[in-house]
Amino acid sequence: MKTYKIALIGLGSVGQGVLRVLADSKCQYPEKSAEFKLVAVTDSKGAAVDMNGLDPAVVLKQKRDGTLKRTPMTGLEVVKTVDYDILIEVTPTDAKTGEPGLSYITEALSRGKHVVTSNKGPVANKYRMLTELARSKSVHFLFEATVGGAMPVFNLMRAPLAGNKIKGVKGIFNGTCNYILTRMIAEALPYDMVLSEAKELGYAEADPTYDVEGIDTALKMVILANAIFGMDVTLDDVSIQGISSVSLEALKLASDEGYVVKLIGEVKPNGDERILKVSPRLVPKTHPLAVQGTLNAALIETELAGDICVIGKGAGSVETASAILSDLLYIASVGK
Amino acid sequence: MKTYKIALIGLGSVGQGVLRVLADSKCQYPEKSAEFKLVAVTDSKGAAVDMNGLDPAVVLKQKRDGTLKRTPMTGLEVVKTVDYDILIEVTPTDAKTGEPGLSYITEALSRGKHVVTSNKGPVANKYRMLTELARSKSVHFLFEATVGGAMPVFNLMRAPLAGNKIKGVKGIFNGTCNYILTRMIAEALPYDMVLSEAKELGYAEADPTYDVEGIDTALKMVILANAIFGMDVTLDDVSIQGISSVSLEALKLASDEGYVVKLIGEVKPNGDERILKVSPRLVPKTHPLAVQGTLNAALIETELAGDICVIGKGAGSVETASAILSDLLYIASVGK
Repeated sequence: MKTYKIALIGLGSVGQGVLRVLADSKCQYPEKSAEFKLVAVTDSKGAAVDMNGLDPAVVLKQKRDGTLKRTPMTGLEVVKTVDYDILIEVTPTDAKTGEPGLSYITEALSRGKHVVTSNKGPVANKYRMLTELARSKSVHFLFEATVGGAMPVFNLMRAPLAGNKIKGVKGIFNGTCNYILTRMIAEALPYDMVLSEAKELGYAEADPTYDVEGIDTALKMVILANAIFGMDVTLDDVSIQGISSVSLEALKLASDEGYVVKLIGEVKPNGDERILKVSPRLVPKTHPLAVQGTLNAALIETELAGDICVIGKGAGSVETASAILSDLLYIASVGK
Repeated sequence: MKTYKIALIGLGSVGQGVLRVLADSKCQYPEKSAEFKLVAVTDSKGAAVDMNGLDPAVVLKQKRDGTLKRTPMTGLEVVKTVDYDILIEVTPTDAKTGEPGLSYITEALSRGKHVVTSNKGPVANKYRMLTELARSKSVHFLFEATVGGAMPVFNLMRAPLAGNKIKGVKGIFNGTCNYILTRMIAEALPYDMVLSEAKELGYAEADPTYDVEGIDTALKMVILANAIFGMDVTLDDVSIQGISSVSLEALKLASDEGYVVKLIGEVKPNGDERILKVSPRLVPKTHPLAVQGTLNAALIETELAGDICVIGKGAGSVETASAILSDLLYIASVGK
């Protein structure tokens, strides 16, 4: 049994999900001969650090009832000074700068620490720099949770599809958009009404621009493009059209012909005819990508296995934390 | 770069797929620091053995044009005497006895050789004995290709869903049945006519009993039950109903209410209320399992990640070989 010391930066929805997942297992993963010891957690109010190990269940409870005792260390001080093996970086995404996650991740990798993140900003903005830094320090930089939440994508390609050339990836990578488009046609309601409903239900943010205008999906396409196909692209390289101008009439017309409309992100290297785009597209109702509600779905086009489609929950606190856990256990399984 | 010597038993559709996959890559997998050397192939006519390595492209061509030179060794003699690291066993499935694959696999594991198989018979009949034998010899016994062809199931649970308790698995595991049910409702044709068409197209065997009566799906449920949930069951423990008595009228009634009919295999441990069955069931048209044609689909119910659905080609020479390749590369990646 090997013990990995964990520092968790960010105690929002995903960070709390990580605490719950670790609490459920009491940090023990005997099937991977691994256990985790949570030595630090930070949020905007400070940090709790204990080299003897924090109890994730207790931290979670105290975070929720407001009794978590913190020292006045910043996240960056924790990242730079605490003795941990793996940094879990789950602060909010800033699409343009990648900060503050980018600084945390850069510092941790520079110190020779593994990094697992759910933060799309740093991965989309500085993928090449961060992976090269990780490689130079012989540590892992993993980000399964950035694309598709609980839906495995990178881990699926790493082992189950090993040896397979990946020719392209396309799919539904934003649950908010999928929910809105599904409800519009199911209830014959216009965009604005469904968006209001989605906000009430917590499926859309108060400012939904990031989701409905396709930026979230585009960031994920940038991550796929760079990580799977070795492109070196940024958000500016993606052709982006969101769903705010999709009318109920268009959905009805599509439906009459046997189609649904979905916000589809697609990446394909294809030499000069590179595809890197996000747009509403017709999908036959019988196609594996025609999934409903808040589900995400990815169709991975492979050379040997043909098309493999994976469908799962694209968001959710514990679901996203499960993707982080799979990255943690990957680090444990390769024994570094 | 580590070299693994391979013996391939069986040169039918899957065996030829393995040759093609190895030929395509010239047996080189630099991303896993592994290369394979094919030292023996066997079929019912004898064996070709060359410790300097057989060229899979040449063997495939010679097998197809009838010029493959064989020595009069049997498969069992090759398994018992040739110096290889990994046995690839891809002989036809015998649901009742598991032979001849069972003998090949037992002998190879006893010699301390890794085994990768696509043969459902031995895994369904003697899972516990074979895994214990493999464990006692510290070698791998892998069988991704037995369930769902190219569709990853075991490899998906091993790494991408690591740390997740699997609560149940259900899905469509037989492409022949899915093709027949899809065509019946799409073309409003009765079972017998579609079955004839499926035979002509090569989607159904001359004697389709094994597929249409649910035996193939049931064998896969036995493998899932034993391998994932640690049950110790055989084909006799599965409640099996096939599709031969499904009428076009039933499909139409279901369709009018928004459902399709699919042959669903399901395994769930659930203590005393264990589920282990194969039967035609209603699936909402909008459900991820409502896939068409010859596709397979598996819904994996997990504790943390929620329901994960994976869809892919359940059969096909190269597709099934890709599952075998993923097992070979798993062995290479854990470095034994």
